[in-house]
Amino acid sequence: MILVADNIQITNRDIEKALEELDPKPIQDLVQRCVAAGADVIDINTGPLTRDGEVKMAFLVEAVQDVTDLPLSIDTTNPRAMEAGLRSCKAKTLINGFSLEPTKVERILPLAQTFDCDVIGFLLYPDGRVPRDAAERLELALALFETYKKARLDPDKLILDPVLVPILWQDGPSQAREIVKVVRMLPELLGYPVRTIIGLSNLTSGRGPKMKKVLLEGAYVGMLAGAGLSMALVNVFHGPTVSLVRACRSLVVSDIFTWEEIP
Amino acid sequence: MILVADNIQITNRDIEKALEELDPKPIQDLVQRCVAAGADVIDINTGPLTRDGEVKMAFLVEAVQDVTDLPLSIDTTNPRAMEAGLRSCKAKTLINGFSLEPTKVERILPLAQTFDCDVIGFLLYPDGRVPRDAAERLELALALFETYKKARLDPDKLILDPVLVPILWQDGPSQAREIVKVVRMLPELLGYPVRTIIGLSNLTSGRGPKMKKVLLEGAYVGMLAGAGLSMALVNVFHGPTVSLVRACRSLVVSDIFTWEEIP
Repeated sequence: MILVADNIQITNRDIEKALEELDPKPIQDLVQRCVAAGADVIDINTGPLTRDGEVKMAFLVEAVQDVTDLPLSIDTTNPRAMEAGLRSCKAKTLINGFSLEPTKVERILPLAQTFDCDVIGFLLYPDGRVPRDAAERLELALALFETYKKARLDPDKLILDPVLVPILWQDGPSQAREIVKVVRMLPELLGYPVRTIIGLSNLTSGRGPKMKKVLLEGAYVGMLAGAGLSMALVNVFHGPTVSLVRACRSLVVSDIFTWEEIP
Repeated sequence: MILVADNIQITNRDIEKALEELDPKPIQDLVQRCVAAGADVIDINTGPLTRDGEVKMAFLVEAVQDVTDLPLSIDTTNPRAMEAGLRSCKAKTLINGFSLEPTKVERILPLAQTFDCDVIGFLLYPDGRVPRDAAERLELALALFETYKKARLDPDKLILDPVLVPILWQDGPSQAREIVKVVRMLPELLGYPVRTIIGLSNLTSGRGPKMKKVLLEGAYVGMLAGAGLSMALVNVFHGPTVSLVRACRSLVVSDIFTWEEIP
């Protein structure tokens, strides 16, 4: 399971301020801490980035690339900012992401072709609504895959995100269970080993004690690992979660086991 | 997921000595620590117990029952000791267990009828050999279930154990992965929600650093929880493992989630 750090977010006030002032230092410090914590990919989540989106995304990508060679994941709903970010990337890049929403299909998805990169597809309705169960997600996966193939993109570059909802939602626990099923069933449904990703921090968003949140996401990431999850978007400063992901990785991929694999 | 404590074992020298001297105190101290650590069931593992098996098992069961009302799991390969243990039990009891081995079918399995209790069935060949993969385990499950039904026992009282092997075995990691599949597939194979159990301590038996062992079993128990495991036989003094099992439990069974469910 590949660890994508979700720590570089515009909702982080230090990052927001650094971006406003075009000051790379706070961003680079945070990225270096993510790398040290075990990130395999750095997600750059800017939200819509409405004002000066292109300049700011290019600045962010360059700031991050100055301190790490890790692959980046460009995470914005703004197609212009997305394009500027992809243009600035030197290493392997991930588009995060598209859905059946018309503007995403028309303006984000073609960028995966132009820049020949991996792209995350969210299992969401065209109006942004979250599916209620496994059956709805599997239907959406078929529709999304059709749209993806029509764009003549390589199935091996698609990564599906079943869209986890907070456990505190009224149907949170059943949604969490349904998503474990969906992760397991997607490769069989699409007829090839399609990759999957989960935004794990969604599980515990909202109020709750930090230690319990970390414990719950650790338990859940194991459940997802058993179902074959390929990638997890996580707060890499949650040490126990990162350790559990690495332990799952050694269980999932090892041929012959040695204790050196375990952190 | 129900937590069965595997801590009361004759291989523990304090227990062996206490049993030799018929001194209940060290046994009762250990049981009380298991209860405090979160055990739902106490396994009493005596091995073959060849000398004075009946007296010793009855003594053990009584010693344990004097300090807890938790259900017990009687874990011996000696049919006479098993029977003596079951006869002494006041609360709900579990037979641990039988397999296709002829003496087990002839002498252990009928006790499940006599004492009307749950019984664990090991997916092992009649000669004690461990299956190599999921397919072999599923075949053994069908054969074992046939044998069980022929004995006119209630399918709802059967619990299947796919027999985990140490991760350090040459095929340890692939066996661990196959067992996740088996746990998921057994209810579908047998056509009803048959319960499953794993002896989790087997995963990390042999040499290895304690902290890494606990981390690995925590990761693996999450994988098993995602596959629907009903019960885990564990060292309940591994605090992180117990916490993860409880967190998995709240993910697997909750309708509406509250943070109070998480330890």
